[in-house]
Amino acid sequence: MNFRSDNCYGVAPEIADAVQAANQGTDSSYGDDRITARLKARFSAIFDREVYVYPVISGTAANALALATLVPPHGAILCHAGSHIAVDECGAVELFTHGAKLVGLEGANGKLAPAIVETALARFEKGSIHHPQPNAISITQATEVGSIYRRGEIAALSGVARANGMKLHMDGARFANALATLGCAPADITWRAGIDVLSFGATKNGAMGAEAVVFFAKEDVRDFEYRRKKSGHLMSKMRFVSAQLEAYLDDGLWLKLASRANAIAAQLAEGLAGVDGAILAHPVEANEVLVRLPDETAARLRKAGAVFYDWEPPSGGRTLIRLVTSFATPAQDVANFVRIAKG
Amino acid sequence: MNFRSDNCYGVAPEIADAVQAANQGTDSSYGDDRITARLKARFSAIFDREVYVYPVISGTAANALALATLVPPHGAILCHAGSHIAVDECGAVELFTHGAKLVGLEGANGKLAPAIVETALARFEKGSIHHPQPNAISITQATEVGSIYRRGEIAALSGVARANGMKLHMDGARFANALATLGCAPADITWRAGIDVLSFGATKNGAMGAEAVVFFAKEDVRDFEYRRKKSGHLMSKMRFVSAQLEAYLDDGLWLKLASRANAIAAQLAEGLAGVDGAILAHPVEANEVLVRLPDETAARLRKAGAVFYDWEPPSGGRTLIRLVTSFATPAQDVANFVRIAKG
Amino acid sequence: MNFRSDNCYGVAPEIADAVQAANQGTDSSYGDDRITARLKARFSAIFDREVYVYPVISGTAANALALATLVPPHGAILCHAGSHIAVDECGAVELFTHGAKLVGLEGANGKLAPAIVETALARFEKGSIHHPQPNAISITQATEVGSIYRRGEIAALSGVARANGMKLHMDGARFANALATLGCAPADITWRAGIDVLSFGATKNGAMGAEAVVFFAKEDVRDFEYRRKKSGHLMSKMRFVSAQLEAYLDDGLWLKLASRANAIAAQLAEGLAGVDGAILAHPVEANEVLVRLPDETAARLRKAGAVFYDWEPPSGGRTLIRLVTSFATPAQDVANFVRIAKG
Amino acid sequence: MNFRSDNCYGVAPEIADAVQAANQGTDSSYGDDRITARLKARFSAIFDREVYVYPVISGTAANALALATLVPPHGAILCHAGSHIAVDECGAVELFTHGAKLVGLEGANGKLAPAIVETALARFEKGSIHHPQPNAISITQATEVGSIYRRGEIAALSGVARANGMKLHMDGARFANALATLGCAPADITWRAGIDVLSFGATKNGAMGAEAVVFFAKEDVRDFEYRRKKSGHLMSKMRFVSAQLEAYLDDGLWLKLASRANAIAAQLAEGLAGVDGAILAHPVEANEVLVRLPDETAARLRKAGAVFYDWEPPSGGRTLIRLVTSFATPAQDVANFVRIAKG
Repeated sequence: MNFRSDNCYGVAPEIADAVQAANQGTDSSYGDDRITARLKARFSAIFDREVYVYPVISGTAANALALATLVPPHGAILCHAGSHIAVDECGAVELFTHGAKLVGLEGANGKLAPAIVETALARFEKGSIHHPQPNAISITQATEVGSIYRRGEIAALSGVARANGMKLHMDGARFANALATLGCAPADITWRAGIDVLSFGATKNGAMGAEAVVFFAKEDVRDFEYRRKKSGHLMSKMRFVSAQLEAYLDDGLWLKLASRANAIAAQLAEGLAGVDGAILAHPVEANEVLVRLPDETAARLRKAGAVFYDWEPPSGGRTLIRLVTSFATPAQDVANFVRIAKG
Repeated sequence: MNFRSDNCYGVAPEIADAVQAANQGTDSSYGDDRITARLKARFSAIFDREVYVYPVISGTAANALALATLVPPHGAILCHAGSHIAVDECGAVELFTHGAKLVGLEGANGKLAPAIVETALARFEKGSIHHPQPNAISITQATEVGSIYRRGEIAALSGVARANGMKLHMDGARFANALATLGCAPADITWRAGIDVLSFGATKNGAMGAEAVVFFAKEDVRDFEYRRKKSGHLMSKMRFVSAQLEAYLDDGLWLKLASRANAIAAQLAEGLAGVDGAILAHPVEANEVLVRLPDETAARLRKAGAVFYDWEPPSGGRTLIRLVTSFATPAQDVANFVRIAKG
Repeated sequence: MNFRSDNCYGVAPEIADAVQAANQGTDSSYGDDRITARLKARFSAIFDREVYVYPVISGTAANALALATLVPPHGAILCHAGSHIAVDECGAVELFTHGAKLVGLEGANGKLAPAIVETALARFEKGSIHHPQPNAISITQATEVGSIYRRGEIAALSGVARANGMKLHMDGARFANALATLGCAPADITWRAGIDVLSFGATKNGAMGAEAVVFFAKEDVRDFEYRRKKSGHLMSKMRFVSAQLEAYLDDGLWLKLASRANAIAAQLAEGLAGVDGAILAHPVEANEVLVRLPDETAARLRKAGAVFYDWEPPSGGRTLIRLVTSFATPAQDVANFVRIAKG
Repeated sequence: MNFRSDNCYGVAPEIADAVQAANQGTDSSYGDDRITARLKARFSAIFDREVYVYPVISGTAANALALATLVPPHGAILCHAGSHIAVDECGAVELFTHGAKLVGLEGANGKLAPAIVETALARFEKGSIHHPQPNAISITQATEVGSIYRRGEIAALSGVARANGMKLHMDGARFANALATLGCAPADITWRAGIDVLSFGATKNGAMGAEAVVFFAKEDVRDFEYRRKKSGHLMSKMRFVSAQLEAYLDDGLWLKLASRANAIAAQLAEGLAGVDGAILAHPVEANEVLVRLPDETAARLRKAGAVFYDWEPPSGGRTLIRLVTSFATPAQDVANFVRIAKG
């Protein structure tokens, strides 16, 4: 019963096979190989326009490199105070941007909204050398707490961004999970809604270690390739990363995997609705369930072997825990978890 | 009628004289001169214990170097969301720490309090490599909005800091103004209350360009001197900076200057109390008056030649303005300002 | 006929199998998995003492993180002017150390020697804040030009390092190739000869993307784990990297692969000895052959499909080219290459 | 007898007076004052074209900020291996550029020449993401050893720079000394010879602490002002720095001071020519004399109170010492020094 994170699960068989299949003969290194060369067309088809795709091996690298490319050292990035880049990446963005400022904002269900951003902007005078210059907004899709931005919400944030000369970044570590729920085109919640650069995640959804930074305009790529190399993130045998991404997109595998994970999360949420004292903390829209459980329930589950993460310290007899499902989480684990929770 | 900032005023005559007097013969450069050599004993006497003093030429340099010495790149610094290091130094601390995270917190009257800090700490798991590690708290004395921390308030924050293995930094750009109000010993609101390192300001209070980083324990100095040099902040003709600090402390000049500035601010606040529609936004405890004025009053003052800073954009017919007084602000300017404000 | 680099070849079958085998069930992420947990004991056995091992996915990351852990921002690192860290990593070490200085030195056959280091040290006064402080020497084993440091040479450099309070780093991107030639114990050319930290390469010698930073003393590890995380180099599904390293060391696979590559390089060198106008530029001691060929010979080879790297621009009718062999380079390719070279 | 450095001397009276005179009334802070506003026209007149001038307080700041503005983190800067930025600034350029590479080159009399630069360029493939990209050459005028670049020499280096898409920076900490010797227009050895940005020094030649970064093209200024602020180098009471620069240029004061220092150096060199065993190491073209003296002569001078710097450790019975003269060095000191040297 491992609900600790989707990255505790292994690799989808189709992707594992693709890695093996890539192990044929010689090819150029450092991303000049044939598989990597095919990614641009593949991603462009997925996103319904010409895009610029750069594989890396971690979400932290994707986020930090994407933002460092768009935000100068004297810039500031507005994000949710509980976002991955703010809390869970050990300050990678501050390092890679050479000291840009992350401004952490509070917002319901892990999301930002135009009014929140505008209030924060009042503190930073545009064009004044004294103030870190707000140059980007970063949002997470799906969010850290399993909620999802709708297209209109993204477009509204993009409006604020455009009006203030800011770029809009999406941390899409769980992009497929959001898309599977929304059922729209990838373009609809990215460039058509004003996203400038996307950290396109695959690792949490069945890849071995593969993410892609996707720019939607060529001029935004700037010196990205130097930054990736200078930070040690240009794999020499890149074909084995690119092969994962290719298989991930083949025949809609990515959405199948995400739909499976989301469905399991929905079952879990449904089951927990019948548990005494359980209170869902956020809408369950992707593959994460944040739920407050009575402390004795949580303890009973742990004792029975369930693995999960305390999202907040215990308080008032309950603990907010996070349960993450993956493409490979057994349905039986959900059934067992709910049964034990019911006591 | 210049109330824009205390640094719009010049240099106190005693300090200007000391700069001239330092212009005698040869001396060693880069801080190995005779005047700089005397600072340690002088500051140690002021602070009632052996301290370690390093002059620099700007408050931003003092803050960023002090914090970078104590906080590693993977660290986090908790501070008020409106503090100078968070908003007005263009991200200097993020640069000098090589990417440590500033966590901006809200608190009444520009101040932090233990509960605010403790809530924020819950987001950062101690010892987890995923989270920026909260290694320091930074407070401002007097604050950006002219309020003052009492000894007990500092000691309480120090308690939280100690309990969590954090250092406590004080941005004392207006340290003398706070001290003049409190009337206590410098030690009482620094090391005796748990401050580990102080950015000791003099520029805003009558010096030409002189601040000092004061460490209260030798082991905290670490590689500070390399950092100061590497960032171009080691003046070659240091004696002219140190001479300012020496004169500043002679015969209690610093407190006389600060008392004068504070008294003028008090007069201003008192006068504004009689102005229709004027609402003080914060207690006036040092040399800053933050007041909401009807927009037409603010406009009338500007038209009459008054210079001041809009602290927030106009809202609901009023604008929050900041008025800063200095050792040299003419009393007549206050009288005129109030008179014009009354209309 | 691909002699461009050893990383143009794929993955050794045993390692590819291990990656597949690791794809079983759930495990903890971010290096807390069972396979990674076994690496410490495995590497400690290989190195005949307790060592501290941290997998990463690129040699650039290994070098930059290892050196940044040992060298402060105000430090300097002495290395060969043609070394990988100096020339081929886009300045990664300068980035990760936050501005430490790389001092590039010339030395025969890509190697440093004590006298070269001592001459360079004269420029940097020890303990002076004005000078970047030489805190480390970095050497490459095997070197960029295919030569090898003997144990005594390393020990001599270590002597200079110790006498000057410096750490000694080895870039072992081709460590196995050097070891295969020397036939000694791994300990003999690392910690027993005074190496403090080793970038242990596997990718160029048959892994998919796996290197390890090996510290030989616990106190040198310092904040390495924070640095790896902060730079995005902590893989979430680490088990797939660690599995490569484990298979690499199983049954001496690493040395078998390296011996094969070295033997092929020796055949190539031998064959080229019979080519008119070919002049070996450096001793062939590992898996690289640097040879000056008449320009028409080089052109003929390229036309025939041979792939290799011009190491220096053409000069005086000859071009210095680099030929790298791998565990999987076909012997037939060597025979063909020599035959075509002979014209 | 202080020959240790020109910065061991105080401030020229005219400059000290200007600092005092600037202490009148209020003015805007952070460089928005009236004196700073006048600098642009003043420097433009001096340099015979519109220039962009930014005062800072140290040469290290001027160099590091100028280069960081022109060179990206993935860039490389070619300079003399013994230059101030390479050896005497604790790695400030590496810090401010966020990890650009300094490539230290050897050249006679502290100078670079086209062939030296071109040889170095061969190591860094243009446009390759693997190699730090050589984006600037930095030269020092006068050099660290007291020699001077002629206009033609600068133009020749500029030719190499232009041909390779590089910027050309001049560290002019002793620019006035060079100019006083050459007797040409400031423009002749700067923009007319291809210099893009100049660190214009005044501190070593009679100012208190004032340097100016001078850009010769507006588009090169880029984000310089943010960089100056973010690094703590924007003085709040800037007028006191700018007043120094203004006085420095008034009535040709800067050239008078430099000519005086140069003349004293020439006398010293002439006197040393008559000293047994003294060998000048470099041509004396500005205000520095590098001379090898028998060890007993050096010891005798030190015993008599002479202060100077050992440039290299003693070797073969002689020590290479550096003697620097200033605008205020007493002629009597030179006479005494030579007399004692003669024994």
